[in-house]
Amino acid sequence: MTPQEHDAVEVIATKRDGGRLSGSQIDWVVDAYTRDVVAPEQMSALAMAIVLNGMDREEIARWTDAMIRSGQRMDFSSLSRPTADKHSTGGVGDKITLPLAPLVAACGVAVPQLSGRGLGHTGGTLDKLEAIPGWRADLDNAAMLEQLDEVGAVICAAGTGLAPADKKLYALRDVTGTVESIPLIASSIMSKKIAEGTGSLVLDVKVGSGAFMKDLDDARELARTMVELGRAAGVDTRALLTDMATPLGRTAGNALEVAEAVEVLAGGGPEDVVELTLALAREMLASVGRDDIDPADVLADGRAMDCWRAMISAQGGDPDAPLPHAADIQVVAAEEDGYVARIDAMAVGLAAWRLGAGRSRPGETVQAGAGVELHVGLGDRVRRGQPLMTLHTETPERLPRALAALDDGLELSEQPTPVRDSVILDRIT
Amino acid sequence: MTPQEHDAVEVIATKRDGGRLSGSQIDWVVDAYTRDVVAPEQMSALAMAIVLNGMDREEIARWTDAMIRSGQRMDFSSLSRPTADKHSTGGVGDKITLPLAPLVAACGVAVPQLSGRGLGHTGGTLDKLEAIPGWRADLDNAAMLEQLDEVGAVICAAGTGLAPADKKLYALRDVTGTVESIPLIASSIMSKKIAEGTGSLVLDVKVGSGAFMKDLDDARELARTMVELGRAAGVDTRALLTDMATPLGRTAGNALEVAEAVEVLAGGGPEDVVELTLALAREMLASVGRDDIDPADVLADGRAMDCWRAMISAQGGDPDAPLPHAADIQVVAAEEDGYVARIDAMAVGLAAWRLGAGRSRPGETVQAGAGVELHVGLGDRVRRGQPLMTLHTETPERLPRALAALDDGLELSEQPTPVRDSVILDRIT
Repeated sequence: MTPQEHDAVEVIATKRDGGRLSGSQIDWVVDAYTRDVVAPEQMSALAMAIVLNGMDREEIARWTDAMIRSGQRMDFSSLSRPTADKHSTGGVGDKITLPLAPLVAACGVAVPQLSGRGLGHTGGTLDKLEAIPGWRADLDNAAMLEQLDEVGAVICAAGTGLAPADKKLYALRDVTGTVESIPLIASSIMSKKIAEGTGSLVLDVKVGSGAFMKDLDDARELARTMVELGRAAGVDTRALLTDMATPLGRTAGNALEVAEAVEVLAGGGPEDVVELTLALAREMLASVGRDDIDPADVLADGRAMDCWRAMISAQGGDPDAPLPHAADIQVVAAEEDGYVARIDAMAVGLAAWRLGAGRSRPGETVQAGAGVELHVGLGDRVRRGQPLMTLHTETPERLPRALAALDDGLELSEQPTPVRDSVILDRIT
Repeated sequence: MTPQEHDAVEVIATKRDGGRLSGSQIDWVVDAYTRDVVAPEQMSALAMAIVLNGMDREEIARWTDAMIRSGQRMDFSSLSRPTADKHSTGGVGDKITLPLAPLVAACGVAVPQLSGRGLGHTGGTLDKLEAIPGWRADLDNAAMLEQLDEVGAVICAAGTGLAPADKKLYALRDVTGTVESIPLIASSIMSKKIAEGTGSLVLDVKVGSGAFMKDLDDARELARTMVELGRAAGVDTRALLTDMATPLGRTAGNALEVAEAVEVLAGGGPEDVVELTLALAREMLASVGRDDIDPADVLADGRAMDCWRAMISAQGGDPDAPLPHAADIQVVAAEEDGYVARIDAMAVGLAAWRLGAGRSRPGETVQAGAGVELHVGLGDRVRRGQPLMTLHTETPERLPRALAALDDGLELSEQPTPVRDSVILDRIT
C-alpha cells in the first residue's frame, strides 16, 4: 500500500494548530520519515507539536500501526505453546525478567523476551545477563524459535528489522527534548512489542523517583493508553503499576542483580522481588488462560531454576560459573541509630551508573561487577556503624561522585515510620 | 564574548515546559546554531516550542540581539544626512518602496533600502526593479555609501554578512511549519533591519487576505513588538497598519508595478498608492525630525522623479528604456452589470504568481512582464462585457490555473456597497 502523498509542512501545521492528524497524514509522515523523505528537522518539529498538543487514542493507534508497518513483524503462531511477554518501563534494580521468564516458561508458556541494553541510570536486561560467562544476546529467528520450543524461554536482543521507524524516531526524540509525551512513549513501546509477535503482554509501569513516570496519574494514563493499543492490535494486554520510589530488591548493577535473581529462583531473595515476580507471572498465566497454575509452586519445587539453567546454557552461558566481582569496594556505614525511612531509587540508580554499571552513550562498555548492594531494607532498625550498603567498582576514582549521588539518598528516622507493604500500586486491565 | 555553555536538550526543555529562556541560554543557542553545534532538528524543536509557548518581550529582545551579533552590523554614521528606512511585511501589489525611497531622499534624507527577492504570492522589490533594463541589485558597501551621499536613495540586495543566524533560521522555519509566531517574525525582521544600521525605521504592517497577518489584533501585536525592539536598540521605530484585503494599486507583477510606480512619481497613479507613499514618507520625515517638509510638494514638483532617475541610473539602469511586455495577454470581462464590492488580494497575488511573476523556490527566474493588471477599483460601477482585468504571461499554458485562482476573487454587487476610504488602519508609535 502506497500512502497518499502529503506535504510535511501541512502535516506539522495540522498538529501545531491543535488539529487531529488524519490516518492518511500519519501513514504518510511515518513512512516518509523512515525513507528519509521527511527530514529530521521536520519530524522533530512535529514531535514537539505532539508533545505540546497531544494525540487522541485514534491518532495514537494509527501512529503505532504505521510504526509497526515500517518493518517486519515476528510470528510465533507455529509454536505449540501460547506466548506471553512482559515489558517494564524501566526502574532501578529491576531484574524481574531474569527469574520471571524461566518461571512462566516452566508453567508451559512460551516467553520470548526481546530486550535492550541500558542507557542512563536504569540498567538493561541484556547487560545483566552478559555478566554470565559465555552468555550471548544475539540469536537469529530460527535459533530463537527452536529455543522457545525446547526451553520455553528466551531473552535476547531485538532484531533491527522490527519497527525501524520507532528506532529512528526514538534516537531523534532523545536529542530534541521530545521524549516526554505519553502518546509518543506509548506508541514507541507498543509498536515494538506488537511487532515482536507475542499473543499476550503484561506491562510493568514503574512510578516514582527512579522511574520515568514520577506521578501515579501520569503512569495510569500511560498504562491505559498502552493496554488499549495492545487490545486494538489483538494482543491481550494488562498492566501493573509498581513502586519505583525505592529500588527493587537489594542490588543495582549487572552481576549483583544476576546473583539476586538466582537467589529468588533458589527459593530465597528479597521479599519485594519475589512478590513482583509472582504477581507478574500470575498476570501472564491469566492472559493465556492458565490461571489454574500457581507459579509459587513452580518456583518452590525448583522447576523455574531448572528452566533458568537450560535457558542460560542454550545461549552459551555457564550457569555454574562464578559471577565477576569488582576489584574495589567501599562500605557505607550508618552515622547514627535509627530506622530506614527512605531509600531513594534515583540516588541508588545514579550511584550504580557512576560506578560503571551503566553507560552514558550507546555502545559504551559496562562493568559487569560494578553497582550498589544494599544491606538494609525499608523499616529496618540500624545501629550506628552498621553497614548500610557496599559500593562495587573497577574504577575507584569514580567512588566520590557515586557517594555524592547517595547524599540524602538513604534517610534514617528516630522512630519507626510506615513503609510500603506491597510494591503493587494498581492494576489496569 | 564566548557565551556560557548550555545543552540543547536543556534549552528546548525549558521552553517546552513553558519556562522563560535565560539570556545565557538564548545567546548560546543562537550562536551554537549558527556554528552548526546545535543541529537543525534541535533548533526546529525549539522553534515549535516557541511557536506554541511564546516568548516574552525580554526574551524576544535578547533573541533579536543574539541574531544581530551573529554577523556584521552596517554603519551609516559617516553620512552627512540622517538615515531612514522602511520595511513592509509584504503584500500584493506593494510597490511602495519604488516611489517612496526617491521621494524621501529628495527631501534630504538618506534612504538605504536593503531589499529581498520574492517567494510565493508576494513579489520582491529587487525582482520588480530588475525589470528595468540594465539595473543591478548587487552593490558593495563602498558603492552603497557613495550612492547614498550623492543620490540619497539606494535599493539593493542585503549582504550575506548581516544576521546570518536569521538567514539560517528563516530557511529552517520555512520547511518546518514554524513561521507562524509573532516573536519569531518580529525578531527576524528587526534583527535584519537593526543590523542594516539605519537611524530610524518605519514599518508597514499589512493586514488582510493577501498578507501574512489576516487579523488586525495579531498585526497590532506584531507591530508593537517590533516598535519596542527597535526602540530598545536605539532605532526610532514606528508602524502603520495598512489594509491588504485588496491589492495595493492596480497592478501585481514586476514590470507592471514599476510602470505604476513611475506614474505615481509623475504625479498620477492610483489614489491608494499615492496615499500610502505620502503617509509613509511623512512618518520617515518625522522620525528624523523633518516634519517641516511636506512630501506632497516634493512629489508634485518633480524632485522625487529626478531622484528616481538618478537612483536607477546610478545602478546601471536606463530610466527611459521601455519596460518588458509579456507575449500573451488575456482579458477578463464582467459577466453582468454591478458595482465592484471586493477584489481579493490573495486571489490576485496567487494569479500573478501562477502567471510567472513569482517563484516557488529560491533561485528560480521570474518573468519581468507577467502579472495582473486591474482595470477597475473598489466601488466602481461596471457594465456587462466591460474589461475587469488583463492577465499577462510568457507561458500561456499557465493561464487556466491563474484564472482558477481568480474565481470568486472579484465580486460584483447589484447595489453600491461601502468601500474603504483609506488604506491606513492604525498607527503604532
